[in-house]
Amino acid sequence: MSQFPVENGELVVGGVPLTRLAARVGQTPFYAYDRALLSARVAELRQALPAAIQLHYAVKANPMPALVGHMAGLVDGLDVASAGELAIALDAGCAPADISFAGPGKRDAELAQAVAAGVLLNVESFREARALAEISTRLGWPARVAVRVNPDFELKSSGMKMGGGPKPFGVDAEEVPALLAEVGRLGLAFEGFHLFAGSQNLRAEAIVEAQQKSFELALRLADSAPAPVRVLNLGGGFGIPYFPGETHLDLAPIGANLAGIATAAATRLPGAALVIELGRFLVGEAGIYVCRVIDRKVSRGQVFLVCDGGLHHHLSASGNFGQVLRKNYPAAIGNRLEAPGTTPTSVVGPLCTPLDLLADRMALPDAGPGDLVVIFQSGAYGASASPQAFLGHPAAIEALV
Amino acid sequence: MSQFPVENGELVVGGVPLTRLAARVGQTPFYAYDRALLSARVAELRQALPAAIQLHYAVKANPMPALVGHMAGLVDGLDVASAGELAIALDAGCAPADISFAGPGKRDAELAQAVAAGVLLNVESFREARALAEISTRLGWPARVAVRVNPDFELKSSGMKMGGGPKPFGVDAEEVPALLAEVGRLGLAFEGFHLFAGSQNLRAEAIVEAQQKSFELALRLADSAPAPVRVLNLGGGFGIPYFPGETHLDLAPIGANLAGIATAAATRLPGAALVIELGRFLVGEAGIYVCRVIDRKVSRGQVFLVCDGGLHHHLSASGNFGQVLRKNYPAAIGNRLEAPGTTPTSVVGPLCTPLDLLADRMALPDAGPGDLVVIFQSGAYGASASPQAFLGHPAAIEALV
Repeated sequence: MSQFPVENGELVVGGVPLTRLAARVGQTPFYAYDRALLSARVAELRQALPAAIQLHYAVKANPMPALVGHMAGLVDGLDVASAGELAIALDAGCAPADISFAGPGKRDAELAQAVAAGVLLNVESFREARALAEISTRLGWPARVAVRVNPDFELKSSGMKMGGGPKPFGVDAEEVPALLAEVGRLGLAFEGFHLFAGSQNLRAEAIVEAQQKSFELALRLADSAPAPVRVLNLGGGFGIPYFPGETHLDLAPIGANLAGIATAAATRLPGAALVIELGRFLVGEAGIYVCRVIDRKVSRGQVFLVCDGGLHHHLSASGNFGQVLRKNYPAAIGNRLEAPGTTPTSVVGPLCTPLDLLADRMALPDAGPGDLVVIFQSGAYGASASPQAFLGHPAAIEALV
Repeated sequence: MSQFPVENGELVVGGVPLTRLAARVGQTPFYAYDRALLSARVAELRQALPAAIQLHYAVKANPMPALVGHMAGLVDGLDVASAGELAIALDAGCAPADISFAGPGKRDAELAQAVAAGVLLNVESFREARALAEISTRLGWPARVAVRVNPDFELKSSGMKMGGGPKPFGVDAEEVPALLAEVGRLGLAFEGFHLFAGSQNLRAEAIVEAQQKSFELALRLADSAPAPVRVLNLGGGFGIPYFPGETHLDLAPIGANLAGIATAAATRLPGAALVIELGRFLVGEAGIYVCRVIDRKVSRGQVFLVCDGGLHHHLSASGNFGQVLRKNYPAAIGNRLEAPGTTPTSVVGPLCTPLDLLADRMALPDAGPGDLVVIFQSGAYGASASPQAFLGHPAAIEALV
C-alpha cells in the first residue's frame, strides 16, 4: 500500500517505524491512523471538487474522538448517527450549525438531545416530524430539520444500497410533498434535503449519475418545500479499493459534474449549501490494524500464523460484515517488508472459531512469533464495528499518529 | 417458541410477563436469560447421557457473570478461551481443577495466569508446550496439560468445522506422538486429550460418529502418552434449531453411544473422566433479545418496524456472523402473541446500513411504536459476539431472570 513509506524494511506510520510505534502503544493489537494521510485525503478532495461543495465527515466510519477532532478541523461539518456520535462531534468542537443527524430509528431522547444541541435533524418519517414538533414546543427551542428522501432510483454498483425500492431510510420521494406540508403545518424550521443513495462505490459514472439524479429530484421536491432550501446533502458513496483488481475512484468526472450542479444550484436553489458526506473515503486508507504473531504452525502442509488479534477487533477483514464471498484485505508482515512474499500463509486470530481468519493462503514472507501483521485499509468500520468483547480478549487500542 | 409460556398474549420469561420485565430492566434493548430453562436443559442432558459423562459449559457461548455463576452450580466444569473468561470462571466459584483453557493463540501472559490458577491447559502447539515449561519453571507451579488434537476426520454436517484437514486448532493427530514425547521431556503434568471436531450440528448420527472416532483416536494416541489419561474431552457440537425446517437434536442415540464409550473407557482408559463440552446447546434456547419499536413505516408497500436495537446487539440475527445466506431467526411481537401474524413485515434497527435487519418480510401481527420485538434462540453468541459500540448506541443490558 503505497500511501505508507517503508524504511529499513519497516512500514512507517505517522513518521514512526512500526516496531517503535508498537512499543510506544504498549500493546498489540492496535489500530493506527495517520494524521498526514487524513489531511492529504481532504486536500485531494478539495482540489478535485468545486469550491462551492461543502465536505462533511460521517463520524460513523471512525468515531475515535481524537480522529474526529482532527477531521473537524479539516472539513465543513460532521454527520452523526446517534446521540453517542453527537456527543463526540460536539466534544470535537464542531459548531452545532455544522452538524447533521441522520438515522432511521432515532429515539425520542435522542431527538430531544439533538434539538437542544441545535443541530440539523434529517427527518426520516412522519412520526419523527410530529415527535420533533412536540419536543420543540416542550423545550422551547425550534427543531432545525431537513427531509431525508428515499429516492426513486438506486446507486448502481454500490456496496450497499440506501435508496431506491422499499427502504427504512428516509421517506419515499413520492411521499415527500405530503411530509413537507406536514413540516410546514408543524412549524418546524425547514432547511433542506438529504439524499443518500448508497455506499462503497468505485465507479465514478455511477456516482455522477446518482448525484445528478439526486439534484434533479431535490429541485422537484423544493417546489413543495415550506421554506427555501438552505442545505442540500447529496450523500456520499465514494468507495476505496480493498481487493485485487479494484482501483481508486476517479474524482475528476465527479468534480466536473458537481461543478455543473453548483452552477445550476446558484440560480435554481439560491443560497443553498451543497454538501457531500463521506466517511470511509476520508479515513479508510489512512488506517492500519496491527497484531502480533504468537505462534507459527504448519498443519497438514498449510502455514498458519496465529496472532493476538483477529475477528473480534476487525470483523470486516474476517469477511463477516456484509460480505457474500470472503476476500483477503491487503496485508503484510509490517516489519519484514523487504522479504519476498512467497509462502502461502493463513493469518488467524486467537478465537476458537474458523471464522477468525485475517488472511487466507496469502503469499507472505516467512514470519514467526513476534512479527507484526498489518491489515491495510482499516481506518473505517474497524474498531467500532467489531465485536470486541467476543471471547474476553483485551480491546484493541487506537492511536492517531 | 414453546419453551416460553404465554399469558394474556404476552411472553413470560423467568415467570415475568414481558412488558413488566422490560419495565424492570429499565431500558430496551435487553437480553433476558431464563434460569429455569437453563436448569431444565442441563437436567434433560443428564437424563439422556450416561452418569459417567461429565458435562462442561463453554463460557464463550455466553460469558455474562451471573449466568456463568448459575451454570457453574449445574455442570461439572467450565471451559474458557481467554484470560478474560478464566477470570469469570474463577469468580463464578468454579474449582480450578474443573476449568480447562483452550485457544489456538494463547499469549504468554495468559498461559502464566492459567498456570498460576491451576487450571488444565489444552496445549495447541509445540511452541505452547515449550512456553508452558518455561513458565512452570519460572513460577514454580507445574502446568497441568492436555493435548488438543486436530483429528484426521471432520464432523459431518457441522455448522463450523474445527477439525480435519489443515487447521489452526490443536496439533495434527499424526504429530501428536511427537508432541507427547516433548511434553514428557519438558516435565509437564500430562492429563489427557481434547478433541473438538465442530459445532452447531443437528444430526445425531454425525455427532455419534465424531465421538466414536474421537474416542478411538484418543485410544491410539494414549499409547504414546507420558502418563495415564485422566481426562478425555470429546468436544461438543450439539446444535440448536434456528431456522424453518430445523428440528431439535435427538439425544437418545448420542447417549447410547456414549454409554458404550464409557464402558470401553473403564477398561481401556481406567480412571479417565469423559467430558462433553457444550456452549450453545446449554444456553442458546433459554435466551431472548428484546427491542422496542420506535417507528412503523411503509415504504413502497413494504412494512418496516424500526426498532431501538439491531445488528450492533445481535450480529448473528442480522445474518452477518458466519452465515452464507441470511435467514430469519424466530421472532415475534412479544406483547401481541395472540394476534395473528399476517402482515409481511421487515424488522430493522436504528443503524444507517441495510445490514441492520432483524427480520426480513416475516409474517407478524400489526405492531407499532412501543411494541416489543422478541428474537428467540438468542442465549448464545449474542451480546458478547456483537459490535455493541457500532454507531454509538447504548449497549444492551443482560438480565438473568
